Amino acid sequence: MASSWVPDMDPASDFSLANIPFGIISTTADPAPHAAVAIGSFVLDLKVLSANVDLSQIFPGIDGLAEAFSQPTLNAFAQMGRAVHRRVRSALQDLLSKKTAHPAVLRDNAALRSQALLPQSAVRMHLPMAIGDYTDFYAGYHHAYAVGVMFRGPENALQPNYLHLPVGYHGRASSVVVSGTPIRRPVGQILPDPAAEPKRPVTAPSRKLDIELELGCFIARGNHMGDAIPVGDAEEHIFGYVLLNDWSARDVQTWEYVPLGPFNGKNFATTISPWVVLADALEPFRTRGIENATELQGYLKEPREERVFDVRLEVDLTTAEGTTTTIGRTSSRHLIWSFPQMIAHHTLGGCPLRPGDLLGSGTISGPGGVDERGSLLEMTENGKKEVQLAGMDARTFLKDGDTITLRGFCGEEGARVGFGECRGKIYSAVQR
Amino acid sequence: MASSWVPDMDPASDFSLANIPFGIISTTADPAPHAAVAIGSFVLDLKVLSANVDLSQIFPGIDGLAEAFSQPTLNAFAQMGRAVHRRVRSALQDLLSKKTAHPAVLRDNAALRSQALLPQSAVRMHLPMAIGDYTDFYAGYHHAYAVGVMFRGPENALQPNYLHLPVGYHGRASSVVVSGTPIRRPVGQILPDPAAEPKRPVTAPSRKLDIELELGCFIARGNHMGDAIPVGDAEEHIFGYVLLNDWSARDVQTWEYVPLGPFNGKNFATTISPWVVLADALEPFRTRGIENATELQGYLKEPREERVFDVRLEVDLTTAEGTTTTIGRTSSRHLIWSFPQMIAHHTLGGCPLRPGDLLGSGTISGPGGVDERGSLLEMTENGKKEVQLAGMDARTFLKDGDTITLRGFCGEEGARVGFGECRGKIYSAVQR
Repeated sequence: MASSWVPDMDPASDFSLANIPFGIISTTADPAPHAAVAIGSFVLDLKVLSANVDLSQIFPGIDGLAEAFSQPTLNAFAQMGRAVHRRVRSALQDLLSKKTAHPAVLRDNAALRSQALLPQSAVRMHLPMAIGDYTDFYAGYHHAYAVGVMFRGPENALQPNYLHLPVGYHGRASSVVVSGTPIRRPVGQILPDPAAEPKRPVTAPSRKLDIELELGCFIARGNHMGDAIPVGDAEEHIFGYVLLNDWSARDVQTWEYVPLGPFNGKNFATTISPWVVLADALEPFRTRGIENATELQGYLKEPREERVFDVRLEVDLTTAEGTTTTIGRTSSRHLIWSFPQMIAHHTLGGCPLRPGDLLGSGTISGPGGVDERGSLLEMTENGKKEVQLAGMDARTFLKDGDTITLRGFCGEEGARVGFGECRGKIYSAVQR
Repeated sequence: MASSWVPDMDPASDFSLANIPFGIISTTADPAPHAAVAIGSFVLDLKVLSANVDLSQIFPGIDGLAEAFSQPTLNAFAQMGRAVHRRVRSALQDLLSKKTAHPAVLRDNAALRSQALLPQSAVRMHLPMAIGDYTDFYAGYHHAYAVGVMFRGPENALQPNYLHLPVGYHGRASSVVVSGTPIRRPVGQILPDPAAEPKRPVTAPSRKLDIELELGCFIARGNHMGDAIPVGDAEEHIFGYVLLNDWSARDVQTWEYVPLGPFNGKNFATTISPWVVLADALEPFRTRGIENATELQGYLKEPREERVFDVRLEVDLTTAEGTTTTIGRTSSRHLIWSFPQMIAHHTLGGCPLRPGDLLGSGTISGPGGVDERGSLLEMTENGKKEVQLAGMDARTFLKDGDTITLRGFCGEEGARVGFGECRGKIYSAVQR
């Protein structure tokens, strides 16, 4: 991999020249949200670049980029399709590399650099996409199995449909927020004593506030209602990936979810990381997913074996006192369904996907001990055991003042393809 | 009620002067979708009106209406709030009544009438709102009870949570379409023999394509994330109502829905009627809902007793041969939860609602015989019995070529407040 002329490139940075993730920023000079890419500890402001450079020279044959980069979301750019994303990323990699073919454009243009290349600390990040619909799947095999064992025992851990189709549900698009947005502990209807008859629910702040470590996938191009996206074509419909924390109030969820699924236990907040790692940037990190011995329906049969990505994932819990403990380490290879399979299933009946739609993988846990789990539900066996934290502290579920930070990256030092942070701090509930 | 100068006012029309529902039309003269109201068999084009009339004279003190009426959705108008909707509807009622205070504006202005007052048959209807999120509740008590008896017997017909909270799930906003849009029979994963082990699903067109007769509610103003909407304030957040047919593939739903709820069994299509009947137009038709003897949580206690509306509802099935049978007749009074209760519950944990969000009531059935049911699932006891149609025909579930038309209205002849049609025709599946 070539190296970049951008200053202070840290080999441990998620945003090496091999990455070039897209996001939406606002700046002191231009408070209207617009597009940028991350490189090292800087961002390249694509709106400023568009205003000062002849884009047809850097991105020959691609129309409409300047307008797309001025939008408050990446939807217009996403909709241009994967071939365009590939060429734009490649051209930006060239522009930012030491041996760029266009040194005069940016590398040797101090005036433009001072406007367009800004420290990440100087910009504000926004939600990268306007999300039409958000769907959350349940493709983390070890998570589904562990939760199933907890509630139904090892014989019936997986529901009969689990290995036949990617189980998922419709989430709440309006509650998806960008990393850093404060998370208010939800009030909900809760059953303090589930065994008592008659049932006596109370309305109270959730006592079982949890996280879900997931990978999120943004749709680039959609499909018309009534059409399906074949599994072999699904890659062309993917824009890129983010980290996703599907905050969950387990006590609310337990009481409400039969028979129609999770509702208030989920719809108070879902946090995503701000930089969309393009699908092409993850291509070198493909690996086999979990093998599914079930004879799959034809529409779910993937042409390739390396169906998922090996993104190393970490969950940090930082207490109000400022002590940080990494409570979980796993990988996105622990998925039994790939995103192309999820897309093929989602559209099988003709459901229209639109640019900017978000798919969650479901909670990702490893097969090992409690330190490989993507939820406190699993780490603590639904509150029965404590997770030990640095400083002699411990948790079953989240306390007010806790901050959860998800991190994820692929690749070696100096050429990492990472996601940055997906972070949220818990604020105390408002009593209703 | 005053009478209107608009020609050919049929006393049986849903769109009397007491109604004035809002919709989005396009016309030969102006193919860009924009706002209108329905009156008798005509529409009043509000964009044409805005372009030709000093709106400050008709709607004094309300800014931004001309711009709102030029938009391709009613979201901007909805967001103006209920007080504005009330004044605008009232002013339009005056403008369209024989004794209007402004006869010169429209009644006696033949030139403007010829441009602005168009036969409904001459305009095309569009989806009235940009729907951010669609939530479907389950508040039809007799439906929930009947379906529960079918699957779990009379002792366990209602789940333990049913009488404590308005059960609901997140639906698929991208699949909501306006009346008249063709409905493609979905292909899905189905279990032909649910009792056989091991499970052997197939991928096939749904053999149990069903309807769900519902009332839909559009949100006017939303809430900030983290805030709740108290039940007593919820009315101010409601824009208006439509008929809603939540098409359902029962065989797909049965196999997929455990544990996360309905997904592909629902997300292929939901049809709504095109005219939004404003909340104020339904006010005179309030009635008590079904009494709930459960001690409710404080946030669900409604200040008033007349919590729901008595909209008379009908379901017509028209065969490919053109024979129509009314297969169901019921009323929206058969809801155990009101829309304000649904809104209070939806936002209890801080979930943000946005202008244009759509809430479905859940299937509405009456307490009587099969002819009061809002779904074929109930009418046929899940396919065990046939619904008899005119012409010696019969159905368990829908056949290709069938058209379902929902209708609904309140009030007496000459002053009806109705919804028009919510119609969809079934086209054969595309084999995957």
